[in-house]
Amino acid sequence: MQALVDTIRREATVLPGGLLKVDSFLNHRLDPALTLAMGEHFASRFQDQGVAAPDLIVTVEASGIAPALATAAAYQIPMVYARKRRPLTMGDGALETTVPSRTKGDMATVTLDAEAVGTNRRVLIIDDFLASGRTIMAVAGLIHKSGSDVVGVGGVIEKGFEKGRDRLAELRVPIVALACVDAMDEQTGLVQVREGD
Amino acid sequence: MQALVDTIRREATVLPGGLLKVDSFLNHRLDPALTLAMGEHFASRFQDQGVAAPDLIVTVEASGIAPALATAAAYQIPMVYARKRRPLTMGDGALETTVPSRTKGDMATVTLDAEAVGTNRRVLIIDDFLASGRTIMAVAGLIHKSGSDVVGVGGVIEKGFEKGRDRLAELRVPIVALACVDAMDEQTGLVQVREGD
Repeated sequence: MQALVDTIRREATVLPGGLLKVDSFLNHRLDPALTLAMGEHFASRFQDQGVAAPDLIVTVEASGIAPALATAAAYQIPMVYARKRRPLTMGDGALETTVPSRTKGDMATVTLDAEAVGTNRRVLIIDDFLASGRTIMAVAGLIHKSGSDVVGVGGVIEKGFEKGRDRLAELRVPIVALACVDAMDEQTGLVQVREGD
Repeated sequence: MQALVDTIRREATVLPGGLLKVDSFLNHRLDPALTLAMGEHFASRFQDQGVAAPDLIVTVEASGIAPALATAAAYQIPMVYARKRRPLTMGDGALETTVPSRTKGDMATVTLDAEAVGTNRRVLIIDDFLASGRTIMAVAGLIHKSGSDVVGVGGVIEKGFEKGRDRLAELRVPIVALACVDAMDEQTGLVQVREGD
C-alpha cells in the first residue's frame, strides 16, 4: 500500500529498544481516509489470495481497532476486539490468555468473549503490527477455543526481521501485510520500508 | 438515533453495580454500519447545534476509538485517541491525568500527546459513554493544556441519571448524546432508553 509506505517514510521514527514510533498515523493519531483505505486494501489483498469473504474480523485493543473496523466496513461484516484488561462486564463466556506487550514493557492478559465470536465462523485476524507473531498466535488460539476458524492474518505494518511469519506458519492461512519494515536503525533513524507481501 | 435505541433495547443488559453491558455492539463487538452511522449522526447533530466543523476529534481508548473514528470520517478530519496506559513510544510532549474507571474498577492514567493535538485547534470530544462526565472533563483538561479549545462533547450513550451534563456545564459547549438511558434496574433488567439530546 504505497500511501502507507510514503507515510511511514515521512513520519515513522525509531526509538531505543527496537520500537517503531508510528503515533502520528497508527498508534495515537489517525487519518480516517488512510485508515479506511487500509481496510479496502486488506479485503482486496485477501481476495487476491483466494480467501473467500470471512464472517468476522477479530483484533486486539487498542491500536488494532481502527484498521480492523475499516476492514470490517470493507467486507460489511462485524468486528470483535479482544480486551487487554478484562472488563467487569465480561461474564463466564470469556476466554483468556497471556501475551507480552512490547510497547508497554510487561505482560498483558488478552480476553475474548466466546459468544461474541461464535462457532463455525470464518475469522480474519487484523492487527496494527505483525512483529513476533506472539499476540496473533494467542488470539488465534482463543478463536479456535471459541469453535471458529482463522482464515487469514493481516498486519498493517510487518517487521520483517522479527520473523513473525515463521511463527504464524502453523496456522496455514494467507498472511497479508500492507507495509513491511525490513530494517531500522536506532543510531541513524533509518527505516527501510516497502509495500507488504 | 433510533437504530441505536432499538439496538440498546434488544441487546443491552444490566449488571450488578450499575453497569450497562453493551458488549455486543459498542464495547467488544461492533457492527461497522451502525458505528459509521453514529459518526454521521454526531456530525449532523453538532451542525444542528451551530458547531462549525472542528479540526480534530479526540477520544479515549479503547471503546471510544470506533465512534470517534466514525465521526472523524464523517467530518474528514484527523482523530486522536488518548491512551489509558502510557506507551513507551510516547515522549516528553505527553500530558497525563488520572480518572476512575467504572468497568475496570480502579484508576486509570490518561495520556495525550500535546503535539498530536496541536495548538489553537477546535476539538470535538467523542466517547462511548457520557456518564459521570469525569473522564471527559479530564480529557478536556489535557486538550486545554495542549493549547487547543473544546468546541463540543458527544457521547454515544448517555446515562442521564449520572448527571454528567452538570459536570460538563462549565465547558460551555454543546453536548450531544445519540441515546439516553434514563433508568435501569438490576433486578428486572429493565433499561429505559430514548433518543439522546
